[in-house]
Amino acid sequence: MMIDAATRSWVEVPEGSDFPIQNLPYGVFVDASGVRCGVAIGDSILDLARAEAVGLFATTELDRDTFRRDDLNGLLQHSRGVWSAVRSRIVSVLDASNRAGREFCEAHDLVIAGPVQMRMPIRVGDYVDFYSSEQHATNLGKMFRPDSEPLLPNWRHLPVGYHGRSGTVVVSGTPIKRPHGQLRGSSGPVFGPSQRLDMELEVGFITGGGPGIGTPISVEDAEHHIFGLCLVNDWSARDIQAWEYVPLGPFLGKSFATTISPWIVPLEALEPFRVPAGDQEPVPLPYLSSDHHIGLDLDLSVEITPAGSAEAFDLTRTSFTNMYWTMAQQLAHITANGATIRPGDLFASGTVSGQTRDEFGSLIEITWNGTNPIEFPDGSSRTFLHDGDTVTIRGRCTADGAVSIGFGACVGTIVR
Amino acid sequence: MMIDAATRSWVEVPEGSDFPIQNLPYGVFVDASGVRCGVAIGDSILDLARAEAVGLFATTELDRDTFRRDDLNGLLQHSRGVWSAVRSRIVSVLDASNRAGREFCEAHDLVIAGPVQMRMPIRVGDYVDFYSSEQHATNLGKMFRPDSEPLLPNWRHLPVGYHGRSGTVVVSGTPIKRPHGQLRGSSGPVFGPSQRLDMELEVGFITGGGPGIGTPISVEDAEHHIFGLCLVNDWSARDIQAWEYVPLGPFLGKSFATTISPWIVPLEALEPFRVPAGDQEPVPLPYLSSDHHIGLDLDLSVEITPAGSAEAFDLTRTSFTNMYWTMAQQLAHITANGATIRPGDLFASGTVSGQTRDEFGSLIEITWNGTNPIEFPDGSSRTFLHDGDTVTIRGRCTADGAVSIGFGACVGTIVR
Repeated sequence: MMIDAATRSWVEVPEGSDFPIQNLPYGVFVDASGVRCGVAIGDSILDLARAEAVGLFATTELDRDTFRRDDLNGLLQHSRGVWSAVRSRIVSVLDASNRAGREFCEAHDLVIAGPVQMRMPIRVGDYVDFYSSEQHATNLGKMFRPDSEPLLPNWRHLPVGYHGRSGTVVVSGTPIKRPHGQLRGSSGPVFGPSQRLDMELEVGFITGGGPGIGTPISVEDAEHHIFGLCLVNDWSARDIQAWEYVPLGPFLGKSFATTISPWIVPLEALEPFRVPAGDQEPVPLPYLSSDHHIGLDLDLSVEITPAGSAEAFDLTRTSFTNMYWTMAQQLAHITANGATIRPGDLFASGTVSGQTRDEFGSLIEITWNGTNPIEFPDGSSRTFLHDGDTVTIRGRCTADGAVSIGFGACVGTIVR
Repeated sequence: MMIDAATRSWVEVPEGSDFPIQNLPYGVFVDASGVRCGVAIGDSILDLARAEAVGLFATTELDRDTFRRDDLNGLLQHSRGVWSAVRSRIVSVLDASNRAGREFCEAHDLVIAGPVQMRMPIRVGDYVDFYSSEQHATNLGKMFRPDSEPLLPNWRHLPVGYHGRSGTVVVSGTPIKRPHGQLRGSSGPVFGPSQRLDMELEVGFITGGGPGIGTPISVEDAEHHIFGLCLVNDWSARDIQAWEYVPLGPFLGKSFATTISPWIVPLEALEPFRVPAGDQEPVPLPYLSSDHHIGLDLDLSVEITPAGSAEAFDLTRTSFTNMYWTMAQQLAHITANGATIRPGDLFASGTVSGQTRDEFGSLIEITWNGTNPIEFPDGSSRTFLHDGDTVTIRGRCTADGAVSIGFGACVGTIVR
């Protein structure tokens, strides 16, 4: 359900908060009472496990103890109708216009003042990383294959992607240990810490949606199987990647860690921010075509706090509207060969890069493979990441007549 | 524990069975009493759930109901010491020289006459597919990149691999639906059923091994984290693969299905069949080097039963000793960048190909990209797989002074 812009919560929501009642993203948190699922509202959290225990979801089809667990997968396995019903129940107790809702929450102590420690929100099934920004693919093509056309012949015909390592997807705040690996040396490869550690600004979607999940999903139906979105930092060791990646693609240059933001923003909350997707030329094959060709007006930014600095500097400001392939097309493509998806599968967009340097989504693009360092106002500069650097990705949707919502932060600090 | 060649079971084991008491592989089966874990002995199964319920594993560190579940992951999470203790308890009740063991089994009805229906033995965490046969990588290099050196510069320095789709790993016997996908056409790509559907003969290992699993694993320690092995058929749609795979590697050409054999042969059972691994030139970097450079003398075969035929024909006979990179090196490599592994991760070897056509592990090699069809004794021939074709992979270890053991069959039939 879409929540009217006039709706307010009785829970205090600070001005400019990412989490007004129009958002209601899901996450997993831990405090002295244990690990469980919750929904963010302002700086507070609605304790879903407790809410469930006192009957808030009794009229929905949720299984017992759906939220008294350490992932959202119990919710994800249900269909979109159940997701809507649950969201509707949550709104009912947080809406300021429903006095009984507030009394219910207060009587059962359902709203917890933040901040609390966040955990991985989902148990990731498979993790797929696409490559769906034309500018990013072009930039990397120019750098990695300078002697050929930057965009390969297949790129405009299908959403190129690969499977990443689901076991090393971590939640925002997890320190990122600089990976070791094989690097090209002057007389053959050497083993050591990556000297070209990079970030990639991406947006991920998480699947679910009940039975029927095992058959090819059409572009039209795809969004029935998208539960929600999060921010993704696809950490990349460019030197490991450059040496290992032919012919089977990225492997250890990516598999050491992938960070996601802790709150999963439901697709329903993003409805006011839908925009027509960009034109595609050539027109994709029928299984990738749809009149329902919809993108998302989501502003994205990356800040870096250099090691030893108290200050964060802008690295990038870009928009998810830059993507060539849409989420619905990505999901239709991945299932077109008969592959099944599962609740909790994570699909990342690929680096979101715009047309100009200040809109590029990775350091390798911003510094053009390290040849053009980026300078910060405090005099420091970077080609790639140093130990102690902190990278923060943020995302925010705004639209006329809608209450702006955000994704929370996706943060990682490089450690030795 | 290694089980002496003189040991016999009181359970009847047919001559030439894959599953004498020296093997004792683990699997998951279902009958009228439900889904649970078992161990194969001859044509029978020791019901581990029932054995656990009546106290067989009381002296081990297993959690309650480790085997009353639909995967072996509860066992996999323990350390090698626990795996040994469990194996020892199983031997104690199956060994013909222990009358009390037989009485215990019979009193509690622990041995079930087969055949029963087998299920996926593990819940796969991540699935990685290597590319570790020099002959296979050379053959495919010649076909896919005819204008350059077949073996790429990195190949002899590291075990090249990629992540596959864990959600579509299926157990032997599952029908394999011919995948659809984008195929190169004369005027751009077209969408349709793969016309070049292939199999790949591989061997997989499954990880586990308790705490400490999150840090880089040395070649020496690697086998502490290898629970056991199975056979793998890495089904491949060559036409989908050829069009999609640059620059990020195999994706939908592989992700539709991967078949594994239902029985996981414990590494302990394979001890008599260990052999020195082949020489490597150049000598790998220190993190991939070890005096403990051990391969496995495992004979592998593939048969095909063409659609409509009652007869199976030999496609390939080869040996796992053909592999250039060892399992221990593969595991050391994958964790060298700090990536964690989990109980239930599956690592496949890559296609096992020998030097000559009758030792190649895939149809694309045997028929040289479809240019040289293989002829069968009944007059039929194949370049790639037809609907109705059944592919069966088998594996068997023999050694002087040891009882031969097998892997059971890894079977799949192509359906439309």
